[in-house]
Amino acid sequence: MQRLRLSLRYTAALLDLLPATKSKLVSNVTLPYFRTTMHYHTEARGRPNSTDYRIYFKTAEGKYISPFHDIPLFADTEQGNVPSKRVKKNESEVLFNMVVEVPRWSNAKMEIATKEPLNPIKQDVKKGKLRYVANVFPHKGYIWNYGALPQTWEDPNHTDKDTECCGDNDPIDVCDIGSKVCLPGDVIQVKVLGVLAMIDEGETDWKLIAINAEDSDAPKLNSIEDVRRSRPGHLEATVDWFRKYKVPDGKPENQFAFNGQFKDKDFAVEIIKSTHEHWRALVRKQSDVGDIDCKNVSLCESPHKCSCEDAACVVKSAPAWGDPLPVPAEVDQWYFPNK
Amino acid sequence: MQRLRLSLRYTAALLDLLPATKSKLVSNVTLPYFRTTMHYHTEARGRPNSTDYRIYFKTAEGKYISPFHDIPLFADTEQGNVPSKRVKKNESEVLFNMVVEVPRWSNAKMEIATKEPLNPIKQDVKKGKLRYVANVFPHKGYIWNYGALPQTWEDPNHTDKDTECCGDNDPIDVCDIGSKVCLPGDVIQVKVLGVLAMIDEGETDWKLIAINAEDSDAPKLNSIEDVRRSRPGHLEATVDWFRKYKVPDGKPENQFAFNGQFKDKDFAVEIIKSTHEHWRALVRKQSDVGDIDCKNVSLCESPHKCSCEDAACVVKSAPAWGDPLPVPAEVDQWYFPNK
Repeated sequence: MQRLRLSLRYTAALLDLLPATKSKLVSNVTLPYFRTTMHYHTEARGRPNSTDYRIYFKTAEGKYISPFHDIPLFADTEQGNVPSKRVKKNESEVLFNMVVEVPRWSNAKMEIATKEPLNPIKQDVKKGKLRYVANVFPHKGYIWNYGALPQTWEDPNHTDKDTECCGDNDPIDVCDIGSKVCLPGDVIQVKVLGVLAMIDEGETDWKLIAINAEDSDAPKLNSIEDVRRSRPGHLEATVDWFRKYKVPDGKPENQFAFNGQFKDKDFAVEIIKSTHEHWRALVRKQSDVGDIDCKNVSLCESPHKCSCEDAACVVKSAPAWGDPLPVPAEVDQWYFPNK
Repeated sequence: MQRLRLSLRYTAALLDLLPATKSKLVSNVTLPYFRTTMHYHTEARGRPNSTDYRIYFKTAEGKYISPFHDIPLFADTEQGNVPSKRVKKNESEVLFNMVVEVPRWSNAKMEIATKEPLNPIKQDVKKGKLRYVANVFPHKGYIWNYGALPQTWEDPNHTDKDTECCGDNDPIDVCDIGSKVCLPGDVIQVKVLGVLAMIDEGETDWKLIAINAEDSDAPKLNSIEDVRRSRPGHLEATVDWFRKYKVPDGKPENQFAFNGQFKDKDFAVEIIKSTHEHWRALVRKQSDVGDIDCKNVSLCESPHKCSCEDAACVVKSAPAWGDPLPVPAEVDQWYFPNK
């Protein structure tokens, strides 16, 4: 733990020293070219705030990896694949790795590019335009650090018995309610506290509620009820946020299974285990891979395993790092949903 | 209007070209050294995010001025002093200059330093520490661009007949509800729509509600009821924000006159006129100046008028511009008031 904390502090200190290229970053965050987070480093390619911007991941030793397939789901293990029964050992203590895609209070819809080799983080593009989520009053951008658990997959060919909907073809989503505002590409350890079953146009899209294990409140929070008590309004705001966040883009409100109620930690851990099994079948080619790119450097049982040299070639062929483009002023608009 | 719009666009383009020095600016905004806004320029001195940071103002011709005393209250006039009866001409059309101190969604309590010569913008300091307002859930920082009307003063020796409280010794505060996120030191033209009478520890502290005249919604908004209809929840959030924003710092909730109801535009304009008269008496030395610094370069009737050379000396003697200091991580905390 001490080692981790020092490493994070070092990263923060480094960030302050590095020059950025934009003075007004309320709606977006520009990353320095190279960055270290926990055991992982990132390497940015392309121009920030452009469609060619990518954040690639590598190990402390400089080996390029896929954050989707090569970062272990369970945080207390070294790189590689871990049997999912491990979670049964001590469920209240288990920590998961989370790949941060979107920092709290920002708008750019950054996400793991599941269909690209090595699955870098990129900004989602809709109809040729970079996607920014609207500020839906009273919220400013995302209201948690938002990201995904590595080595999980919501299988679009699997119908969930509770929601009666198929998966959305992505790793499972996480909302980190910790105080620290993270950066896209940060890999943090989180304690899972509950889960919300969002239904987005007929697909199941689980939203885990978790807290950064480094947060000073983490030891006190052990259930979804603890969250409700200690952060009055935040769970209600979370449902409200997910219900309405696509409405400004002309989409219908999202729906929820279980009448919009959060399920507790044990249920959430079962969901994680199930999505981990679906991911395992995916990378072993036991499921229809579809358009998912499963290239990885560490999974011996996967036919998609490649050499470090192949992985390095993927990154080398990406556009060179460049200066950030400006963020459109519209991103700062506030959308009032009840007018 | 066209000229103004072009000038603002040019400023925005300029900002994108200038290097900043911090990559993570969700809670604070770092200004470039020199900047142009409308007819005014700013010049930053000291290190951003330090107690010696200052933003000085100058005219397009490079003459240093006081934003408190030398920027006209009425936006449609040239630099200098204007009789307050001008407002009677066409009250629904009158635009006021607003000096932006705090950008929407930021936390640093930047304010016009009323007690320093030329009244630069500085960050408020409490008990030796830079002051950042807390994020009171569900809000992120300030929920409007916040600032002051130049050439106004809430006289601490004057008891308001409605609130039965004295003034707070500052220029009158404004909340700009426009979409654009401004920067500290921006001078914008605003259309006033109403006013809230906050009572802060026994002092009257009027909070004007206004909209940036450049905003595409500005022509549609002509009263506080228009704001209520077009931005459901924003006025209630405004009262909630002002009620609770000092609670995380151990202070009591603020109170409001008129049972927390907003007064409409005509009432607001009368308040502005009254605070303008009090300011006029102040700079003419007809009131007890107290610790207010009235140094100015344009008010012929004021004994505090100084030469351009004297004004330049004030700025020259301020600490040199330097690299920004990091913003403390605590600024990103969310405070939940009802737990």
